[in-house]
Amino acid sequence: MEMGAMSLEHFSDRLMAAIETRGSRLCIGLDPRADDLPEAVSRSNGRAVETMEAVVRLCVLVMKAAAPYAAAVKLQSAFFEALGPGGDMAFTALAEAAGKLGLVVLGDLKRSDIGPTAEAYAAAHLGTAEAPSPFDAITVNAYLGADGVRPFIEAARRTSKGLFVLVRTSNPSAAELQDLTLADGRAVCEAMADLVRAWGDDLMGEAGYSDVGAVVGATVPAHLAALRARMPSQPILVPGYGAQGGGADDVVGAFDYRGLGAVVNSSRAIMYAYRAEPYSALFGADDFAAAAAVAARDARDAINQALHRAGKLL
Amino acid sequence: MEMGAMSLEHFSDRLMAAIETRGSRLCIGLDPRADDLPEAVSRSNGRAVETMEAVVRLCVLVMKAAAPYAAAVKLQSAFFEALGPGGDMAFTALAEAAGKLGLVVLGDLKRSDIGPTAEAYAAAHLGTAEAPSPFDAITVNAYLGADGVRPFIEAARRTSKGLFVLVRTSNPSAAELQDLTLADGRAVCEAMADLVRAWGDDLMGEAGYSDVGAVVGATVPAHLAALRARMPSQPILVPGYGAQGGGADDVVGAFDYRGLGAVVNSSRAIMYAYRAEPYSALFGADDFAAAAAVAARDARDAINQALHRAGKLL
Repeated sequence: MEMGAMSLEHFSDRLMAAIETRGSRLCIGLDPRADDLPEAVSRSNGRAVETMEAVVRLCVLVMKAAAPYAAAVKLQSAFFEALGPGGDMAFTALAEAAGKLGLVVLGDLKRSDIGPTAEAYAAAHLGTAEAPSPFDAITVNAYLGADGVRPFIEAARRTSKGLFVLVRTSNPSAAELQDLTLADGRAVCEAMADLVRAWGDDLMGEAGYSDVGAVVGATVPAHLAALRARMPSQPILVPGYGAQGGGADDVVGAFDYRGLGAVVNSSRAIMYAYRAEPYSALFGADDFAAAAAVAARDARDAINQALHRAGKLL
Repeated sequence: MEMGAMSLEHFSDRLMAAIETRGSRLCIGLDPRADDLPEAVSRSNGRAVETMEAVVRLCVLVMKAAAPYAAAVKLQSAFFEALGPGGDMAFTALAEAAGKLGLVVLGDLKRSDIGPTAEAYAAAHLGTAEAPSPFDAITVNAYLGADGVRPFIEAARRTSKGLFVLVRTSNPSAAELQDLTLADGRAVCEAMADLVRAWGDDLMGEAGYSDVGAVVGATVPAHLAALRARMPSQPILVPGYGAQGGGADDVVGAFDYRGLGAVVNSSRAIMYAYRAEPYSALFGADDFAAAAAVAARDARDAINQALHRAGKLL
């Protein structure tokens, strides 16, 4: 159906609409390392800037520069928790700023707990009627089974938001548990995929996607295509693109025949683009935002071109 | 060896010493629900108290009253994140207060991430040389494999702290993934236990326990004994006692022949003891702290008596 005609009451519909409207499947990952900030934000008029302020400046400038080339932004909770008191406020403020740029805002929290504890996490990060949250969706770790996911699903239903459950992560040692073979022949990550598919069944949007999505890494393309087939209605958040080694052709399997159904996250390769080839030859550390913009544009185009080659995009 | 003679440079040694010195295997769980506070803390002189302040008062009063009967306290991060801005400061301040009461302080965070992100979580919650943390150990979810655990282990080594990796949780739906049978005959949680045992090998304290522990729930006693046998050197944090249905005889399997090696967490059954039998007949809502103290004393004694019956305690 036409994206423009949808009511957008579902997270999944808003995500697909953002992909179509913005012409991009890129998610900008904000992983600001407090011990590794460009001087352009960590010093001002020759004096050191307070770390929290420098981190916020870095994120705002990268986000603003790269936003025109992206559909979504993903903020990594850990780097804000590591800032100490006040880090939570910076996290929320940046999420609000991202929303104002028209981006779908993802909170990368990978929380895992059950019952009232999971309800508290959901209230904190998906929001409540009284205290809305700027995040459109968050990531969840479902090692604890349905008890660890249902409270997030119920919160997502009440707030018209979404979640992405870790299914197959992009890191080398993911295989240690996630790729073990079960007695019934499935891999552990396939069993997780089957659970996620079932959990998402009653939270379907109009574009054919559930508000319960999955995280599947770009680093093992065969996994990505197999898990896409196993979860035909799950939006997929694909980490591992860029710095972790996944390329544009590796992520094609995450998308449906219309080039919808997934967003591809790139963190370091955008935020720290000025340090790496080919951008380091063109941009200095002071131009980190311009480098981020060009890296985001190139990532957007590379993904779209790979989809075009695969016949998934006109 | 004699606990008193140990250098206590290892988390595991400090935990075992606390169990021996305090004569208790109880961990007081602080899960303060902001929407469910006793009037004694939520109102003062007829006026509503600010939620953050009420939560801190509840936790401090319960902790102080119950501390003499416990070895450890466990603070649940979710309930502090749900408080919004400043929740992180309350979380840290309460952890500091718990340390001053002589309790081993556990942060129940169940974080899961990799590389620099996991390093940021570890720095935030296990601390660094420049910014020490009041937590002695934190919980970690290892669905992502070694990449998700090594950064926490390295941080624990540098700070003489510990972690507890989720192996078999206490909730009903834990079985959905954790009890699936692998092709090699192991359950998924047994495969996780084997990973945890290996990860803990190079962080051994003097009492024979590693600083890399495991979370194994009290609700399936057969699991507890089997996983203890599979992880002979892992301190075990046992949730699910009390309100979740586990009884004193159910947790005996977590302990070694000396009655060491585990702490048993009870949250709601202590903090909200005044609401449940038999304490509700003796204490009103204003006496929540006294009820918590008696409930903690009874839990301590019930666990010790069960160990005595099993021949694990003189």
